[in-house]
Amino acid sequence: MSDILGQQFIDGQRSALGRETLHSVDASSGQALPYVFHQASDQEVTLAVAAATRAFAPFRQLSPARRADFLQAIADEIDGLGEDFIALVCRETALPEGRIRGERSRTSGQLRLFAQVLKRGDFLGARIDQALPERIPLPRADIRQYRIGVGPVAVFGASNFPLAFSTAGGDTASALAAGCPVVFKAHSGHMATADCVANAIVRAAQRTGMPSGVFNMIYGAGVGQALVKAEGIKAVGFTGSLKGGRALSDLAAARPQPIPVFAEMSSINPVIILPQALAIRGDQIAEELTASVNLGCGQFCTSPGLIIGLRSPQFSEFQQRFAQLMADQPAQTMLNAGALKSYGAGLKHIAGHGRVSHLAGQPQGERQAQPQLFKADVQLLLDGDPLLQEEIFGPATVLVEVDDPQQLRALLDSLHGQLTATLIAEPADLERFGELLPVLEDKVGRLLLNGYPTGVEVSDAMVHGGPYPATSDARGTSVGSLAIDRFLRPVCYQNYPDEYLPEALQNHNPLGLNRLVNGQWSRASLI
Amino acid sequence: MSDILGQQFIDGQRSALGRETLHSVDASSGQALPYVFHQASDQEVTLAVAAATRAFAPFRQLSPARRADFLQAIADEIDGLGEDFIALVCRETALPEGRIRGERSRTSGQLRLFAQVLKRGDFLGARIDQALPERIPLPRADIRQYRIGVGPVAVFGASNFPLAFSTAGGDTASALAAGCPVVFKAHSGHMATADCVANAIVRAAQRTGMPSGVFNMIYGAGVGQALVKAEGIKAVGFTGSLKGGRALSDLAAARPQPIPVFAEMSSINPVIILPQALAIRGDQIAEELTASVNLGCGQFCTSPGLIIGLRSPQFSEFQQRFAQLMADQPAQTMLNAGALKSYGAGLKHIAGHGRVSHLAGQPQGERQAQPQLFKADVQLLLDGDPLLQEEIFGPATVLVEVDDPQQLRALLDSLHGQLTATLIAEPADLERFGELLPVLEDKVGRLLLNGYPTGVEVSDAMVHGGPYPATSDARGTSVGSLAIDRFLRPVCYQNYPDEYLPEALQNHNPLGLNRLVNGQWSRASLI
Repeated sequence: MSDILGQQFIDGQRSALGRETLHSVDASSGQALPYVFHQASDQEVTLAVAAATRAFAPFRQLSPARRADFLQAIADEIDGLGEDFIALVCRETALPEGRIRGERSRTSGQLRLFAQVLKRGDFLGARIDQALPERIPLPRADIRQYRIGVGPVAVFGASNFPLAFSTAGGDTASALAAGCPVVFKAHSGHMATADCVANAIVRAAQRTGMPSGVFNMIYGAGVGQALVKAEGIKAVGFTGSLKGGRALSDLAAARPQPIPVFAEMSSINPVIILPQALAIRGDQIAEELTASVNLGCGQFCTSPGLIIGLRSPQFSEFQQRFAQLMADQPAQTMLNAGALKSYGAGLKHIAGHGRVSHLAGQPQGERQAQPQLFKADVQLLLDGDPLLQEEIFGPATVLVEVDDPQQLRALLDSLHGQLTATLIAEPADLERFGELLPVLEDKVGRLLLNGYPTGVEVSDAMVHGGPYPATSDARGTSVGSLAIDRFLRPVCYQNYPDEYLPEALQNHNPLGLNRLVNGQWSRASLI
Repeated sequence: MSDILGQQFIDGQRSALGRETLHSVDASSGQALPYVFHQASDQEVTLAVAAATRAFAPFRQLSPARRADFLQAIADEIDGLGEDFIALVCRETALPEGRIRGERSRTSGQLRLFAQVLKRGDFLGARIDQALPERIPLPRADIRQYRIGVGPVAVFGASNFPLAFSTAGGDTASALAAGCPVVFKAHSGHMATADCVANAIVRAAQRTGMPSGVFNMIYGAGVGQALVKAEGIKAVGFTGSLKGGRALSDLAAARPQPIPVFAEMSSINPVIILPQALAIRGDQIAEELTASVNLGCGQFCTSPGLIIGLRSPQFSEFQQRFAQLMADQPAQTMLNAGALKSYGAGLKHIAGHGRVSHLAGQPQGERQAQPQLFKADVQLLLDGDPLLQEEIFGPATVLVEVDDPQQLRALLDSLHGQLTATLIAEPADLERFGELLPVLEDKVGRLLLNGYPTGVEVSDAMVHGGPYPATSDARGTSVGSLAIDRFLRPVCYQNYPDEYLPEALQNHNPLGLNRLVNGQWSRASLI
């Protein structure tokens, strides 16, 4: 594709001030693609943050409807990218074409969801306490609160969703929706894809009259630290490894002015198979689990990494069937050489442990990821060993057998924070094990019943978050419309005349919002 | 008062395992009061956190109405404390009786406000996306989201509000409302007061059948670090100095499992006096400002520490009048010896600077705080000197004169984050200087017009927060009902049958909530 320049996107322009260059790689062959990317210089990081900072005031003061137009225009531009774009993403990531088409729809759908949020207006959190001049002993002044963007946001995309969690993904969409300009750090695993998507965003920004610094993108290894340290950056969105997310969180916390980081990091997504369900549909569960573990080469944040069952002849049968199915799964190409290397290291680490046995899987090769099934002694978790707590990114999972419900409860108590927890259960199971629900609720962002955690709906009710180390702050989600909350802060006006108030707070309610007025929700005009 | 035992409150019991003891002090005389307080041992910190941790599951699963009963019972208990209690608070803090009575009403009113929030139920953030089994290409599962407490919260009270920002203050009230048990670190400046209030909370907890570990309190210098490091603590609320708040934030960020900290810290609360207002009512403004600066001996987070005006004969007149009024103000007793020492050091620091002149105030003595007025060269701020950016806690303020509107804008740009910014303005001023509003909005949590920032209404619309260093996280408020949001996190349920869902999410909407159902707000039952 001829328009992939490989230069930074700064303030609506392209820039290549640095000398270092990088190449994008064909994920299947390992060969360099014919695109050169310029690593951002320190100066370019500064310029990108400065552009975002300049854009913040005009951008955040646009009406929500104008920002919605912008998001919709991005969605249209992305939907309009041609067949050569799809082919390019497939080459860079080794993900199949159908998946990329689906992910593109997900990405544009996500942008349109945030456009709806902007039109609905509840994200503004409008609250009005009218003056009480006669109140005894002291009068009350008129006080009105709404929410504004926190400022420019640095976004670090994920390797595993080159579209939906990347350049125009959920973090970017929610930050822009909140009125926050974005400086995006392009992922080294799909730089050409990022270049195309950034161009689409810039076209949409120009078409809808956005400030030129509303979206910026920089390339390069190691430029992320400078970005997070830049004074103008006021929040960070990140999806990736625990090590990477924690490093950025630490960096952000140590700034002269600390800033919030929402890092989505590591989750082993326990799946608990309860006895009745196992008795009734053990084979089906084995098949479904195999599909979930291997979906997309296991490269999902929500891939089931820990399968838990109660010791029984049925569970032994299930184990056998599951092992057989896992053994039959073909090797798959991973997103990039780094992911494959990590996968191999993860397998080696776990396989070498004395309390872990290998149930299925071909020896791990040098080109593709071989699906693997392990079984671990429950005592490993009960003793607080960290071995099983961190995710292995790839098509591997670990079975754990517990003696009885008490041990199951102890095992769940021992788990760290998770994105998801899944129960495979019949009604009789729920009746018997219902007390586990609050235990799971306390550990995760999403509880599933008789489903599989891979596949994260983009909707108002979705939570893709959870206690550490699933994320750096359990109070947020990086998928679904609530993601906008991470980048908003409240401001109130005391005793201001109507014409100087933001529209959300004006008496005649020009945005038609449902507002908390004197403690009651109301869509009324106050005139 | 005979029931002041000075022992830790742990799990509904009293405990004094450590050997070190502390005394409470009469703030006016500096004499020790006849109460001995036992410093919490490491073991007691651990026990207090363990009690809160045990209480979390049962407490957070109580219906919001039950938690509302608890908060109301605390309010009633506090309102019912006798005259000897009021006298005791006055002795420990040197605050006048009328102020303490008012603050008690504020404290019980705050608890009742959160009881209303619990009854209203919007804090639950209920969202429902119903299943779409026929959706193409993939069906949608039923997904339902609400918010739960983050877990046990450590609260550090402030010295300057021994009731409203202390043991049963806003942080405690909002954490309990969110379903989070509290471990409160008693402030060394009013330990006897804290003992009485903690007893009131424990009585209310017993009376309303709360889990015994729902509220715990520990005494002692230096026990705060161990508390913030304790694994069971999941969030921190703090009101106090920048140094103290930053230290706790850094500690929390460095934990194996980092936790959020909401620290309300340092604000100089700029007041900008615009020309028309000055021309029309300069003398009145001087009087009002003097009252605001000296209110409560200047010991408010929102005390105006920076008064800004445009150079003019009117401003020179105002300066003269203001200096005269400040010179006439009597010395006042501060909350404690530490506050007085800090005040003296702060004055010395600023007075010694070559670009600061002293306009009014008696030499600072050894017993009371003398009101002080300084004038600083605007260039100090424009050059980025930190001297004027940190608050002086006490009855001192700084005047700054700017040459013209451009310099005023530059000065405002140079300010760090603030709790408040105030414009004193006539309509003609607003017309001329309206463009300053977004600049101020970007710096603060609360914008005031023709009022004074001291006096923080406890209501739904109040924001007592703001960008760093006003707080450690601009996304929260520590006053007003939105404060509950700091201690809540979202959780979602996928594909759960109605009877296993939390009440907030059940089809027939038993709590009568306004819920976001399939993207539309609705109070309807879904049956």
